[in-house]
Amino acid sequence: MAKNKPVFDTNKFRVKEDQKVDLAKWPTLVDPVYRSKDDYRELLADHVARLSDMQQKLYAGNKHALLLVFQAMDAAGKDGAIRHVMSGVNPQGCQVTSFKHPGGAELGHEFLWRSMRALPERGQIGIFNRSHYEDVLIVRVHPELLESEGLALGDDPDAFWKERYRSIRSVERHLCFNNVHVLKFFLHLSKEEQRKRFLARIDEPEKNWKFSQADMVERGFWDQYARAYEICLSETSTEAAPWFVVPADDKLSTRLIVSQIVLEKLESLKLAFPKVDDARREELKAIRSTLTL
Amino acid sequence: MAKNKPVFDTNKFRVKEDQKVDLAKWPTLVDPVYRSKDDYRELLADHVARLSDMQQKLYAGNKHALLLVFQAMDAAGKDGAIRHVMSGVNPQGCQVTSFKHPGGAELGHEFLWRSMRALPERGQIGIFNRSHYEDVLIVRVHPELLESEGLALGDDPDAFWKERYRSIRSVERHLCFNNVHVLKFFLHLSKEEQRKRFLARIDEPEKNWKFSQADMVERGFWDQYARAYEICLSETSTEAAPWFVVPADDKLSTRLIVSQIVLEKLESLKLAFPKVDDARREELKAIRSTLTL
Repeated sequence: MAKNKPVFDTNKFRVKEDQKVDLAKWPTLVDPVYRSKDDYRELLADHVARLSDMQQKLYAGNKHALLLVFQAMDAAGKDGAIRHVMSGVNPQGCQVTSFKHPGGAELGHEFLWRSMRALPERGQIGIFNRSHYEDVLIVRVHPELLESEGLALGDDPDAFWKERYRSIRSVERHLCFNNVHVLKFFLHLSKEEQRKRFLARIDEPEKNWKFSQADMVERGFWDQYARAYEICLSETSTEAAPWFVVPADDKLSTRLIVSQIVLEKLESLKLAFPKVDDARREELKAIRSTLTL
Repeated sequence: MAKNKPVFDTNKFRVKEDQKVDLAKWPTLVDPVYRSKDDYRELLADHVARLSDMQQKLYAGNKHALLLVFQAMDAAGKDGAIRHVMSGVNPQGCQVTSFKHPGGAELGHEFLWRSMRALPERGQIGIFNRSHYEDVLIVRVHPELLESEGLALGDDPDAFWKERYRSIRSVERHLCFNNVHVLKFFLHLSKEEQRKRFLARIDEPEKNWKFSQADMVERGFWDQYARAYEICLSETSTEAAPWFVVPADDKLSTRLIVSQIVLEKLESLKLAFPKVDDARREELKAIRSTLTL
């Protein structure tokens, strides 16, 4: 049971502030960050145990919150990454919000509203499975969706989108300065690997329910999505709230990379169980003597 | 690794509809439902694995939701039961809401509002750590709290409380008929065991942060709380949304009993991954041939 730490540098997956992203240059597959399936299991179990430990301190300290945003093409493994990395963490300190196509009251509000409502409170890890980024991704690919928000692109589409990126950068900066730390993961899948995973959803009866016609339609817009992601990653990766482009063709590596990045962030917060001062200790002693049946 | 099922009948912890509850007659401690600490770990791991499996089917089926309500005196082990029973379950399908002393918008609304907002959606397990029941427990013990809701007990306190129990029964019946299945757990702790746990929070530095003066004050109202619970359990345990009085002096038994009750409920729902019909299978085959790069 040797504790072999993964040997990769998470920085190489991080989009630097102002860096222009060309997704063709970012790998969808890297050399596995584990040596065998057994090694993977051991590494992941170690990550989960450490995550669980730090999450308890996050909760006890009640000062910081962590927000993890997951975005990706369909079948890139968002659900699996969330399940494998976060199962084992106390659900009392962890809230997952899955954003679907907006409707009702969501459409009646500005595009950040539904994300803001779902922000984690202090001491919590919040996870967004899709997020406000859909409003500069699917909506950028299909701008006719703006109609249901009572909006239109107008004469200067570039200015419209730039304003949205700016809104996002501003609110995420605000969050960071208020101890809601934001990490954003783009699970980077190749078109060929998506094809294989869609085929599996068709061919394996127990996966049929996961298959949706709509996913097929969106696959037809692959290049437009790639372009929308590239602009989005370039415009909204900041020091305060960085994007990570995580290779997604091998699910096991994806999970280890994601969990490693989360761990490093939590470690940087120097979390510890709250300590009581001497005065409070004296107080506790006095109370002690009154604790009779 | 013999899979030894617990040998207890969960029914003996269930409050029957219209049953009058006298808490003195309900045990806070039972013969352990496990044979050794190792046996406990094995049983719990088995429960968690089965829960995790059924929760995936709940999510895939997207028809039912489960709501688990936890109420207890302080230090009865609600947090620990939630952590140990639900860690291992995919947090994407499980939302825990911890209700604190109400404030702000919560006080501006009728007492069921904040619980209703936090209801699990289809496919999800929702967990309430405290709940709308506080409004017939702490508020019954301290009716002056009604002032902050703009209310007063009035001339006929019994009628006031009866109306609240009725509201709760009605809304829980509505939930059950709409596939939100409600299970309610009262973790039944003895006053002596609470004393020991409070002492541990004072004596063990890493537990100091859990200790609150307010808990000491409420301990002084032990008998009033017991009375409020007895009436509440008698009035609101229904076929549709039963209460379970779970012995809480031994935390390990508590967790096994709670998880066993949850498992039995989920099993009764006959969950399975959704199946597709023949027509849909043909459709999938047609789509298959279009899945090219």
